[in-house]
Parts: sequence; structure tokens; C-alpha cells
Amino acid sequence: MSTVLQNDLYLRALNREELPRTPVWVMRQAGRYLPEYLRVRQQAGDFMTLCSTPELACEVTLQPVDRFNLDAAILFSDILTIPDAMGLGLHFEPGEGPRFSNPVRTPADVRNLPVPDPMDKLRYVMDAVSTIRRELNGRVPLIGFSGSPWTLATYMVEGGGSKDFSKVKGMLFSDPSTLHELLNRTTQSVIAYLNAQVSAGAQSLMIFDTWGGVLSPANYREFSLGYMQQIVDGLTREADGRKVPIVLFTKNGGQWLDVMADTGCDGLGVDWTTDLADARARTQDRVALQGNLDPSALYGSPERIRVEVKRVLDSFGTGPGHVFNLGHGIHQHVNPEHLGVMVEAVRELSARNGSTQESAPGLHG
Amino acid sequence: MSTVLQNDLYLRALNREELPRTPVWVMRQAGRYLPEYLRVRQQAGDFMTLCSTPELACEVTLQPVDRFNLDAAILFSDILTIPDAMGLGLHFEPGEGPRFSNPVRTPADVRNLPVPDPMDKLRYVMDAVSTIRRELNGRVPLIGFSGSPWTLATYMVEGGGSKDFSKVKGMLFSDPSTLHELLNRTTQSVIAYLNAQVSAGAQSLMIFDTWGGVLSPANYREFSLGYMQQIVDGLTREADGRKVPIVLFTKNGGQWLDVMADTGCDGLGVDWTTDLADARARTQDRVALQGNLDPSALYGSPERIRVEVKRVLDSFGTGPGHVFNLGHGIHQHVNPEHLGVMVEAVRELSARNGSTQESAPGLHG
Repeated sequence: MSTVLQNDLYLRALNREELPRTPVWVMRQAGRYLPEYLRVRQQAGDFMTLCSTPELACEVTLQPVDRFNLDAAILFSDILTIPDAMGLGLHFEPGEGPRFSNPVRTPADVRNLPVPDPMDKLRYVMDAVSTIRRELNGRVPLIGFSGSPWTLATYMVEGGGSKDFSKVKGMLFSDPSTLHELLNRTTQSVIAYLNAQVSAGAQSLMIFDTWGGVLSPANYREFSLGYMQQIVDGLTREADGRKVPIVLFTKNGGQWLDVMADTGCDGLGVDWTTDLADARARTQDRVALQGNLDPSALYGSPERIRVEVKRVLDSFGTGPGHVFNLGHGIHQHVNPEHLGVMVEAVRELSARNGSTQESAPGLHG
Repeated sequence: MSTVLQNDLYLRALNREELPRTPVWVMRQAGRYLPEYLRVRQQAGDFMTLCSTPELACEVTLQPVDRFNLDAAILFSDILTIPDAMGLGLHFEPGEGPRFSNPVRTPADVRNLPVPDPMDKLRYVMDAVSTIRRELNGRVPLIGFSGSPWTLATYMVEGGGSKDFSKVKGMLFSDPSTLHELLNRTTQSVIAYLNAQVSAGAQSLMIFDTWGGVLSPANYREFSLGYMQQIVDGLTREADGRKVPIVLFTKNGGQWLDVMADTGCDGLGVDWTTDLADARARTQDRVALQGNLDPSALYGSPERIRVEVKRVLDSFGTGPGHVFNLGHGIHQHVNPEHLGVMVEAVRELSARNGSTQESAPGLHG
């Protein structure tokens, strides 16, 4: 697994090294805005078949890397694979998003939740990781990922997506010890799952806390951040002699970046509602920052996209530790050529000293 | 209209005066969680009939004030009355929320938008205000309100509620001048509408910027806050010889409280994702703060609700300028008795020096 990385800008940015330019990848870069993705998606028949067929998951993972020459690949999968492996019965209602047949509502439901062996029911994910890693053949690093325990718990208790999270928050306020037990089991599952991804070839990890931002500051620390801390503490931090950087992303978590940095993670995802200069000040440059263009900016003209890219680069300012990204996943109805404009603008506008070197001698992994 | 106010704690809190206890009211306090509301709602037939029948709007406005002995009444109405009066054709699809038959999508749509005379098509709102004011008979102050121009624009362009605001953000990034023209017309309409509410008897005003928090900091200032500033500058600030305080509330706007305070408003609504101690530090006590219990806390037990109320009071700390409220509207499925527990806890836990005086001599309006 120790192929030399031809482009390790992403890993070095998370290590806060000085680089010739700012690396760029995009959340949900493999997805429905790409016609080549839609073709494979149709071939697979349904979304979970696509996730659970390593060759197809590999194919769609590589599509945006090929098309846009991005600086990282991210495993094509879903954050709900873990609850599905716990037996909750994940399925997708057309136009409705994910649903669980067996949501978790009672203390007994929680007690009956297994911690899935990642090499058993989640083996298909590890097979996808090793297939992608082989096919990447060292072009760019591969990012593995998981949902945060709190975010997974919202889906597990609500039985799907939610608008006001009344069931999971009802549990939080009326029976917090049951929620803690659920979060404990989910945390153990996430740690095993992510470490298995590293064993299978993931070179960096990201934890998506999509719904941490619906909590109060005190409840965020108690019910979301505390469990992400356990994960950071429990993860393999090195593979093939190279650091495996960890990025935490709490959407709408801009006010908590300082305590997130305290976990000892390497980078923080920042959505577009926080100015990157503020984010740097709050985290005192202890971590790298990833973000944070408003995904809707890609609805603008090419000229406008360049202006917005420059605004993000300028808000980060000089110095190391920036990974360019959208502030959340790319929208379904974006013109793929507009993403190309964004990527080109990042490469061009962030270039320092005219250098284009994408790999540091002696730092391969 | 100059009835003596028997309880003016709310107005004095917004004026940052020292008070015997913290006043309390609740966003959406007149609403579906109350069985007495549901009875009137059924009698009215549909939601807009309820809003546009002054006697019924008055009845539901007073219900929670009667039941919980709250410190303020808020006009029962909807933020979408203005776009409806502009001719957009507001209607409510069962289980779907508000919809407009004629959304605003093109420069021509925007040019054709009238600035409605509040005494013509919005007369029913003013009639409701004067009816409520008469029926309150000085018990507590009456709050009038409007949506912010940006928040109204999201509904006007999307044609209803939205998840990712692709149409209005598409306009923002691809044709910002058209969006500015829409916001200008809406701003003029809001100013006329709120000033008419004050003429009809509203004693305080609140501007709900429910969707400002989906913008980047720079776009928030340009497309939302800038127009709220124009409104603050254009409003009647005194009536019956007494100040008419203005409260701005941007949901998920915790990071921008400092620039919001710069508008010269009297108070800021704060949702539950921001600690009130941080909010005070950021605004340097220049404004009063209103909030900020997580509405879902009312799903907890009475004991838990008291703990959470105390946490909010403690986070504000000592000194004047706090109005207790939820951090957003009360949820539909909350047990009304739990709101009673919250209100009692606020009264009891915030009481200073055992005083229960609810009106300052010589300060009536």
C-alpha cells in the first residue's frame, strides 16, 4: 500500500506546511450533478447497490478526480452505513431521503444495538476503499469518512431526516442517559469503522457532524463534541509511516471552532457562514481549515465564481493550512463546468512563486 | 391609546433598566400547541381567515397571555402578509407550508412589484392591532412584527419554503442587482407596514430574519443586514410619548450579533446556539438580549425544564437587559403545561430582592 503519492498537497496542507498553491477538493464531489455519475447510478439500480459494489463505488469516486484534476479523492459511501449494519434497515424513499425501518426509540432498542464488526457487515466499504486506493495508484490521497455519533443518532432516533429533531431532542431532554448509551455504542462503532478504513487504505479521515449545529453550546459539548473527542483519541493516526490527518466538520459550528480544535484533530471543516479570518483567529492557527465557498456561488457566472473564490482565499490570507472546499456539499443542479471554473480559479489565484510542485521530495507515503 | 400599562417589564428590559425580575414571552406563543387556539383555528376554517379577521386574531393573541400571564402579547399574523399584498397569491398547502402562486423570478417580475399601502390591502392587520390593543387594555405591551426583507425575498423567489434556497441564491450570485431591487421594494413596504402598526397601537416591534443565517458574512451584510438597517432608520421610534423599542432576530446569526447591534436597534433575539454570556461580550451590553432556551427543552420533565431555565438565566448573568424567550418558535407538539413550568421558573428564579413590582411609577405609556 506504500505507492509513492504524486500529489500530496492535501496531506501537507493539513499538516500546515508551506505549499506552492492551495489544494482543493469538494464535498459530495462524486454525485448527481455529474452526468457520468448518473449513468453509473442508473446502471447500479439503487443507491445502496452503488455503495456496496466496490467496482462501481470506485468508478464514481474517481470520476470527479479525473474530470477536475482534484487534489483528493473521497470514498463514495453514505454516513448511514453504520446504523444500517446495526440492523436499522436503511432504505431510500424516492424524493424523501433516507429512512430506517427500525428506528431507535426506547432504552431496550438502545441496549439491543450491536457494535458492528467492520470486516463483517461493513466489509463492502473496506473493499471499496482498497479498490479505490489501488485504482488511484498514488495520484492523490484517499479520504475515508464517517458521520459523527450525534449526527448518526439524529437519523437513528428520528427514523430519517428531520426538520426540528423533536424525537432525538425529546430523548436528549427527557432521557439523556439513554441517548448517552446510544452515542457510546455508535462511537465505538465509528472508531472500529474508521480504523478499518485506514487499514484498507484511507490516508486521511473526515468526520461529518452535519447536525451538531442544532444544539446549544453546552449540549454540543456534551452530546456531540465529547464523542468526537473519543473518536479522535481512538483512531490510528499513522499508516505506512505517514500521519493520517483527521478533519472534523460541524455544520453551523462556527462558534465552536476553538473547542473543536482542542480535540487534537488536524483540520476543521468550516461552512460559509464563518469568515476564515475569524476562524483562524479563534483557532489560533492550531489546525488547518477546510472550506468555505457557499455552494450556491456555483450558480453564478464564471466571472462571479472567480470573484467569490478570491474572496475565500483572501479571507484565509497568507500562511499555511488552507484546503479549499465548498462550505457544504455541492448542489445537485450545478453546472459541472462551473465547478471546473472554481477549481481552475483556486489553482491560479492561490499559486505562490509560480511553483507547481505537487509533491514534496522525501515526504511520500 | 394612552392607557396606563400595568406591566411594562418588557419595554423596560429592552431599555436595559434594572427590574425586579426577568420578563418572559415566547415566539409563536399563540399557536397550535394550545387546544384553545386549535378551536378558534377550526372555527376560522383556514389560517389566512384567522389572520384577517381582527376579532379572531385578537382572541388567539390573548389566549397565551391569559393562560400563562406572559409579559408581552404579540400580534397574531404571518410574515408573508406583505408579499401577499404585493399580489403574489399566498396560500397554504396542507402539510406543505406556505406557497405563492406568483413567485418573483425575473427582473420584470421585480419591476412590477408594488409597495402596498398598509391602510389598503393590509388594513386587516392594522384592525387586528387596534382591536388587540383595546382588548389588552394596558395589561402588557403589544409587539408588532414583520419578516426581514431577505427572509421575505427567500419565500417570494422560491415560491414557498426551501431547503437549499437555490433560486434566491441563484439570483444573488447571478443577478444581484435584481435581488437588490426586490429587497429595496420589500424594505419600503416593511417600513410603511411597521409604522402603520405603531400608529394602530403596537408598542414594540420585532423583525424576524429567519433565513439570514444561510448567508456568508459578507452576503449577510449586503443582502440582509443592510436592509434591516434601513428599516431601523425608517421606523417611528416613539409613540404616546414612549420609546417603541425594536428587536432584530437573525436565526443562526450568533456570529453577527456585534454588527447587528451597530444598527441602533434596542434588542437582539438570540437563538439557543449562542451562549448569552458570549452574546453580551460580543455586543458589549449595547443592546438588550432576548432568548434563548432551546424550544425542545420543553419536551423534558418539569425538573429538567427548571434546570435548563436556570442555565439560560445564569448564562446571561447579572445586570439589566434580558428578556427570557425560547430561541425560536415553540414546537407544535409541546405540552402546554410545560410552557407553564418554564414561565413559572423564569419568574421565580429571576426574582431579585423579593420585589414583584411590574410597572415603574411615572413611566407608563
